[in-house]
Amino acid sequence: MEMARTRKHHKASSSVRGREDGRRRGALAASDAVLSIGLEGDSRAPLQRRIYHALRSAILARRLRPGDRLPSSRQYAESLEVSRTTIALVYEQLRAEGYIEGRERSGTFVATALPDDSLVALPASQRAVATVKSRPAITRAAPGPKSPVVSGAASLSARGALLASLDVSSSISSTVVGPRAFRLGTPALDAFPYTLWGRLLARRWRQFSASQLAYGSANGFAPLRSAIAEHVRTARAVTCHDDQVLIVSGAQQAFDLVARVLLDPGDTVCVEDPGYRGLRSAFEGAGARLVPVTVDAEGIDVATGVAFVPGARLTCVTPSHQFPLGITMSAARRLALLQWADNANAWILEDDFDSEYRFRGRPLPSLQGMDPHGRVVYVGTFSKTLFPSLRLGFLIVPTVLVDAFARARAVLDRHSPQLEQAVLADFIAEGHLVRHIRRMRAIYTEREARLRALLHEGVGEFVEPSQADAGMHLVAWVTGGGSDRRLADLADAAGIAVAPLSGLASHRLARGALLMGFAAFDEQAMRRGVESLRTAWLGGRGDAFASHERHR
Amino acid sequence: MEMARTRKHHKASSSVRGREDGRRRGALAASDAVLSIGLEGDSRAPLQRRIYHALRSAILARRLRPGDRLPSSRQYAESLEVSRTTIALVYEQLRAEGYIEGRERSGTFVATALPDDSLVALPASQRAVATVKSRPAITRAAPGPKSPVVSGAASLSARGALLASLDVSSSISSTVVGPRAFRLGTPALDAFPYTLWGRLLARRWRQFSASQLAYGSANGFAPLRSAIAEHVRTARAVTCHDDQVLIVSGAQQAFDLVARVLLDPGDTVCVEDPGYRGLRSAFEGAGARLVPVTVDAEGIDVATGVAFVPGARLTCVTPSHQFPLGITMSAARRLALLQWADNANAWILEDDFDSEYRFRGRPLPSLQGMDPHGRVVYVGTFSKTLFPSLRLGFLIVPTVLVDAFARARAVLDRHSPQLEQAVLADFIAEGHLVRHIRRMRAIYTEREARLRALLHEGVGEFVEPSQADAGMHLVAWVTGGGSDRRLADLADAAGIAVAPLSGLASHRLARGALLMGFAAFDEQAMRRGVESLRTAWLGGRGDAFASHERHR
Repeated sequence: MEMARTRKHHKASSSVRGREDGRRRGALAASDAVLSIGLEGDSRAPLQRRIYHALRSAILARRLRPGDRLPSSRQYAESLEVSRTTIALVYEQLRAEGYIEGRERSGTFVATALPDDSLVALPASQRAVATVKSRPAITRAAPGPKSPVVSGAASLSARGALLASLDVSSSISSTVVGPRAFRLGTPALDAFPYTLWGRLLARRWRQFSASQLAYGSANGFAPLRSAIAEHVRTARAVTCHDDQVLIVSGAQQAFDLVARVLLDPGDTVCVEDPGYRGLRSAFEGAGARLVPVTVDAEGIDVATGVAFVPGARLTCVTPSHQFPLGITMSAARRLALLQWADNANAWILEDDFDSEYRFRGRPLPSLQGMDPHGRVVYVGTFSKTLFPSLRLGFLIVPTVLVDAFARARAVLDRHSPQLEQAVLADFIAEGHLVRHIRRMRAIYTEREARLRALLHEGVGEFVEPSQADAGMHLVAWVTGGGSDRRLADLADAAGIAVAPLSGLASHRLARGALLMGFAAFDEQAMRRGVESLRTAWLGGRGDAFASHERHR
Repeated sequence: MEMARTRKHHKASSSVRGREDGRRRGALAASDAVLSIGLEGDSRAPLQRRIYHALRSAILARRLRPGDRLPSSRQYAESLEVSRTTIALVYEQLRAEGYIEGRERSGTFVATALPDDSLVALPASQRAVATVKSRPAITRAAPGPKSPVVSGAASLSARGALLASLDVSSSISSTVVGPRAFRLGTPALDAFPYTLWGRLLARRWRQFSASQLAYGSANGFAPLRSAIAEHVRTARAVTCHDDQVLIVSGAQQAFDLVARVLLDPGDTVCVEDPGYRGLRSAFEGAGARLVPVTVDAEGIDVATGVAFVPGARLTCVTPSHQFPLGITMSAARRLALLQWADNANAWILEDDFDSEYRFRGRPLPSLQGMDPHGRVVYVGTFSKTLFPSLRLGFLIVPTVLVDAFARARAVLDRHSPQLEQAVLADFIAEGHLVRHIRRMRAIYTEREARLRALLHEGVGEFVEPSQADAGMHLVAWVTGGGSDRRLADLADAAGIAVAPLSGLASHRLARGALLMGFAAFDEQAMRRGVESLRTAWLGGRGDAFASHERHR
């Protein structure tokens, strides 16, 4: 029953000044205006809601003006052929919101307190921020094309514009089904123990009581903290008691939290060069000034690097398995770094992201476990050992920092979801994590060797893959002085993700390389990927040569 | 088999200078030293790990010095009565970490590159940050008492110290089983549809594929964004398309994100006074300067409040149901605020935390839906409509801000866990959310009336409860000029949580009040709670009188 009526919109209401005028004038005219209002919107919506919307729109659009009288509920109900209760409820709601005032006996009016000028559109010339103001005001129902990032200082803050300019990875809008070969950072999700995890999930949910649905602790679920402490003491030679473990929503949040708790805007941080972009973005986003320090065969350069950065408050390292080069930081460097932190009264962030996947030898012990000064903040994640969309990681901080970190976490986003924490606690405590890592290690050993062989065979004239001793990616050095960016661009155009090493370095590299994840891909996917690379690179070489010829 | 041996620790190694000296001298002596090392730690741990730890500890503690020769693996294996492979693996690992160097044929030595001074303890006088340095270095295995929050500028940053000083609520270390009466913010968890949620959870997990275990989109799970957009368009009169919805880990993260994307440190923000502490903490923690603006019977004071705050970039409001007073912001104020934002080129944050629980009339429409200028950022949460430990909420932002928010979110913590998002999407899309809210509304209507009646009856001489039209708490005004803080303290001592209104206000209130949650408590819990209050307050009154008498 669509009710767009044909009666003309009256004009008498435009000269209203106050309530009394309005009442006198509006007694008939405005009631007519109300009765002429058509009901818009979805005709399947409840009638009460449609009437409400029609009246509210008319008031906001000043088709009904302050002081205008509304018809009695009886009169209006009759005209719309609805029950009088429906209209009474609509009026009650509009009254509660301040759009109308007065009562049934004395008459109901559009509220006079509506500011007269609030609905007059500003001329376009007065609109300061075109990008913001130009957005269609009401017609937002239809999905339009994506807007560009706002960059004007008048709309985003400088901090906001900085945050919006930072890259964590290509994860912003990953719409591809399954990870592309050879994307970094994705574990062998095809080998994840779905059934087992599902069983633990169902069991935990059945046990969940009201207290576990309520707010939890900012530090994390206590049994999970214990399980993690126990695990890293054994597997990573971390020295800690359970209280030092703080659950976070992945390593990315750990970086943000460390930056905000330990650094002020403008503070200096040493980072490995080349190094992990997600970490850099978190620290830059929190206002830190980053100083890239070169990594050599022993790890980050402490004696002639870190030690010469004036006022550095923190150094971030990946000592057990450097990202992206895979270097193990030597004991000498570790000790030098610990000594630096103690002398400089500074902190060390140890990002221990994938060192449990060590194929040759047992996992190397953590830097944290060697630290007698309490200067190391250790970051671990389950994105690599389990799965990324779980969004669980942890921090192990010196005892004196535990409360500060927990309180800061509460201010940021309170705590991580409780159910996942409980399931993960069971998974670790019942020994599944250790078994899972062992299984994955075997798979990765095989996949690493397989990818190396396929690369040698298929694209050996372009890259020279080096052996990875741990982790989930290998480094393929570009042969013959080629550009890693160019090879990565050609690969990308062919649907293959390979990260150019130069993209993670701030100094000019002696030799380019491509970083290629092997963990998530079976032989077939790898074979297809390497074939695509071969085609892309052979074609690219031809193109480049041809264009070079043309330009001569 | 514990192997603490009795041979004396030799002293010859203390004058070593270089590798050659060490080799010559160490050839016998250091080997002896190694053979004399006892194996510490858990005797159930694998022997290989225990030997490794013993050697590493000896090197770090300089019982073995740079250049010291290690026994051959055969010799050492015999002395420990273990297999030679075990020792070979230990040596391999220590070599990989840089603790030892050389090979089997030419001899294995403690690495000379260990810096000589790295392990000398500093005298206590040189230790700058006593709170940090005084932590026991290695003996952290036993859980000790909680350390105080670090506050020195040398350890925490100024920002970190600020963050650590902020309160979100009492959620930091909630160890009480089940929420205490009459704690704020907890819904009726006893009436949560466990079985239904568990069914959706199990179904989603069964459907989960590798691509859903991988990193997701920073904006959130697309079907959840659609479901929320659809829900708020209908239930909250929000005007948006699906793309404007961003999933966050609860309202607290939304506040932090808004502060970091839209404000620079030092920017001015108007907040309601009295108002929500979690919001204030998020903005203070992000460096904003807060200006509390008084709330009257129509909501926040725009004309003589907000409009007179120089340079305000943002105003935060709870227009549909003011926290904590329960006021509905009038249409006039809404329009004035929208106009202010447009004129001032500023933003409005609409925190719509519990307005779906409106007992009288339909839920009031959002401020966002009235905004023709694209100046409102709308925040919603499922902590109240579902359960807090789910940690899911959402932001609805003007189209031009979507990408900036998504990118910033990725830098903060990438995205929210995927499984919960998928389950929630189903819960909403299949109509369960609307049904659940309807059920809760009925329960809350009853519980609100019940608590009011019990308060009148039991502690009517202390407080005068006012009727709540919506939400999950009521305001009980203190009678006879009493102090709300004092009543709250007495209640707290008796195990009852009531929040004093004065604790949420920065100006002096004409009259104190207590905020009491009613949603999470059945009649029995309420009755017990009110009885405890009565006893505590009657006793407190007596005490106060007695002490007053004594002091006369």
